Amino acid sequence: MISVTRKSHFNAAHRLNNPKWSVEKNREFFGLCNNENYHGHNYDLDVTVSGELDEESGYLIDMKELSTLIEIEIESRFDHKNLNLDTKEFKNLNPTAENIAIIIWNILRKKIDEKFSLKICLYETSRNFVEYSG
Amino acid sequence: MISVTRKSHFNAAHRLNNPKWSVEKNREFFGLCNNENYHGHNYDLDVTVSGELDEESGYLIDMKELSTLIEIEIESRFDHKNLNLDTKEFKNLNPTAENIAIIIWNILRKKIDEKFSLKICLYETSRNFVEYSG
Amino acid sequence: MISVTRKSHFNAAHRLNNPKWSVEKNREFFGLCNNENYHGHNYDLDVTVSGELDEESGYLIDMKELSTLIEIEIESRFDHKNLNLDTKEFKNLNPTAENIAIIIWNILRKKIDEKFSLKICLYETSRNFVEYSG
Amino acid sequence: MISVTRKSHFNAAHRLNNPKWSVEKNREFFGLCNNENYHGHNYDLDVTVSGELDEESGYLIDMKELSTLIEIEIESRFDHKNLNLDTKEFKNLNPTAENIAIIIWNILRKKIDEKFSLKICLYETSRNFVEYSG
Amino acid sequence: MISVTRKSHFNAAHRLNNPKWSVEKNREFFGLCNNENYHGHNYDLDVTVSGELDEESGYLIDMKELSTLIEIEIESRFDHKNLNLDTKEFKNLNPTAENIAIIIWNILRKKIDEKFSLKICLYETSRNFVEYSG
Amino acid sequence: MISVTRKSHFNAAHRLNNPKWSVEKNREFFGLCNNENYHGHNYDLDVTVSGELDEESGYLIDMKELSTLIEIEIESRFDHKNLNLDTKEFKNLNPTAENIAIIIWNILRKKIDEKFSLKICLYETSRNFVEYSG
Repeated sequence: MISVTRKSHFNAAHRLNNPKWSVEKNREFFGLCNNENYHGHNYDLDVTVSGELDEESGYLIDMKELSTLIEIEIESRFDHKNLNLDTKEFKNLNPTAENIAIIIWNILRKKIDEKFSLKICLYETSRNFVEYSG
Repeated sequence: MISVTRKSHFNAAHRLNNPKWSVEKNREFFGLCNNENYHGHNYDLDVTVSGELDEESGYLIDMKELSTLIEIEIESRFDHKNLNLDTKEFKNLNPTAENIAIIIWNILRKKIDEKFSLKICLYETSRNFVEYSG
Repeated sequence: MISVTRKSHFNAAHRLNNPKWSVEKNREFFGLCNNENYHGHNYDLDVTVSGELDEESGYLIDMKELSTLIEIEIESRFDHKNLNLDTKEFKNLNPTAENIAIIIWNILRKKIDEKFSLKICLYETSRNFVEYSG
Repeated sequence: MISVTRKSHFNAAHRLNNPKWSVEKNREFFGLCNNENYHGHNYDLDVTVSGELDEESGYLIDMKELSTLIEIEIESRFDHKNLNLDTKEFKNLNPTAENIAIIIWNILRKKIDEKFSLKICLYETSRNFVEYSG
Repeated sequence: MISVTRKSHFNAAHRLNNPKWSVEKNREFFGLCNNENYHGHNYDLDVTVSGELDEESGYLIDMKELSTLIEIEIESRFDHKNLNLDTKEFKNLNPTAENIAIIIWNILRKKIDEKFSLKICLYETSRNFVEYSG
Repeated sequence: MISVTRKSHFNAAHRLNNPKWSVEKNREFFGLCNNENYHGHNYDLDVTVSGELDEESGYLIDMKELSTLIEIEIESRFDHKNLNLDTKEFKNLNPTAENIAIIIWNILRKKIDEKFSLKICLYETSRNFVEYSG
């Protein structure tokens, strides 16, 4: 078992809000993150793939392919977007760092060979990050 | 002459747009940054103050005071805000990294003793930054 | 299972010494770290909490609460302190990075809901770090 | 169970190539990394040792000894070398990041007490890294 | 006067050697960097452009254009290359970090409007960097 | 004119205090940094040397020599020390980051050829740094 990680990033606006809660409860619970006009982040994303080495190539997985997959499936979908308004994934889902990490894992899981396991690490700021592996 | 720098940060949404230009020109020139629903960044800010050492304290300037000044004047003003919608500074000014750095310099310049010179370094992403010293 | 990590830091002085050993053995074993007048570090701390997502909020745990907990329980206890002289935790315990990580885990473990698991990562310098999860 | 990690680095040239493949297949598969005149990297290496704390010293393992071991066994072997031409390890093994991590693990595993487990993390660039723990 | 900086990188092999010196003098002076089989680095490059703000766009210079220029003129020229063997710039010039920075400055200076001043910062390792502004 | 920078670091304990002030004034002015039992930091040091390139070697200055000079003159003097108690430089001088930077500049200035100019950048924490160039 060996794992390889590719780092990537995207910049996006978002707002944390639960439409089932009152305005007051949302403000109190989510604080500044509830700002109705949105705020934003530079999201740093680590995608880790684990499995058995391919002895012929000396690669676990082709990093250029992994990098292209992240670009097509994640960066082009979320970069320079308003997560709440511009993406179908967060139309009805609160774009917390936890939910973004889970959504990214779900998107990539379908595109990466089942023989590999997959882990997502998402930095929302340089001081907060989330890890999810299914 | 000695200088001290304090690092700080804020997270905000913004949109680049020149209202005097056509929709098409804005889209072409500003690209993804023109997204009408906004995107966002973790802005990292370095505030550098230069001058002569105060020999009695061994300080150029009290870093706690500088840090508090940045918190009150910059972080509380811009953190978790939509720069275009929530701040008076960018109601009629395009919030490019250059303009944000200039605005921050203008705000802090009035609050820092004239005997000191002042420089702002603003990172919009980990790969782009702007420097301004008046 | 998802995990979230909050980064934090504190600055402290310490001295490595085992009172049961001779002066010579302490000097030889701990080297410069045995300096009787102390030396110090900027400790960087990662606190990782793992468990099940709260679907209603989209949070695993409220990061502001976690951050406040770290501030009250760890930063205010150890920041700008001499670990050997100023803290009860290291009066009779050698403040190696390993022991500091274990003490921090023990302190936080009592304050964090049992449904979560907890992991501590402590950087003593930018080149050395310790991980402990109970 | 506690773990300690020591960071280290070495600079080296390498070329990715499988001598059993045709020139064309190597070029297509390995791309720029197949350049016959080599290219190079600053490799950053994290060596993680895990086990039970030695209560007497408060150390898991003496970091100075671990650091010296890495210096002798890894840095002096690979630093400022052409991995393909100057090292016996990669004379007949493709020096992918994966294979370098495995080789480093194999070298250190023989030198570190069996009571400890060992993990290698190797950064080939600031955006790609490999992890291996046997 | 305001300045903007764009970060970029390339990976390359090189060898330090002065053909006018004896083999012994080269070995003694350049040490490990004189290895005849080359070694390599991840070079991190900061390109800083200074001048007057364009008030209409709020930009000093279009960062996408600057980024594309660096990609075409610098990355495609030096990335995954052996500087001594694969580039005309270092066929007869010792590829020290100082000389690489000067060459990059000379290349970009011709492509960037004379109204701007230009500064290059080149990291050869995370502990060594060179600055050149003509 | 070109400049090269070498990064280095040392870990030390210190206490900020002005013996001419009352206990109360010291406590109020220096806050936690006045702790009579000391606290500490990982100091990161950038030494920048500027001048004219030596065309024969392609070096401004031999980085190994500069690195050795920093090791002998700065690291061995301050690393793992209590700046107030263990060093003659701070017996009667308040070890603020500003004063440490000035002392380091004074020490290195005498050891570096006058044809070069010299600049010191000292990080006391990852959020505060001081620059001094004489």
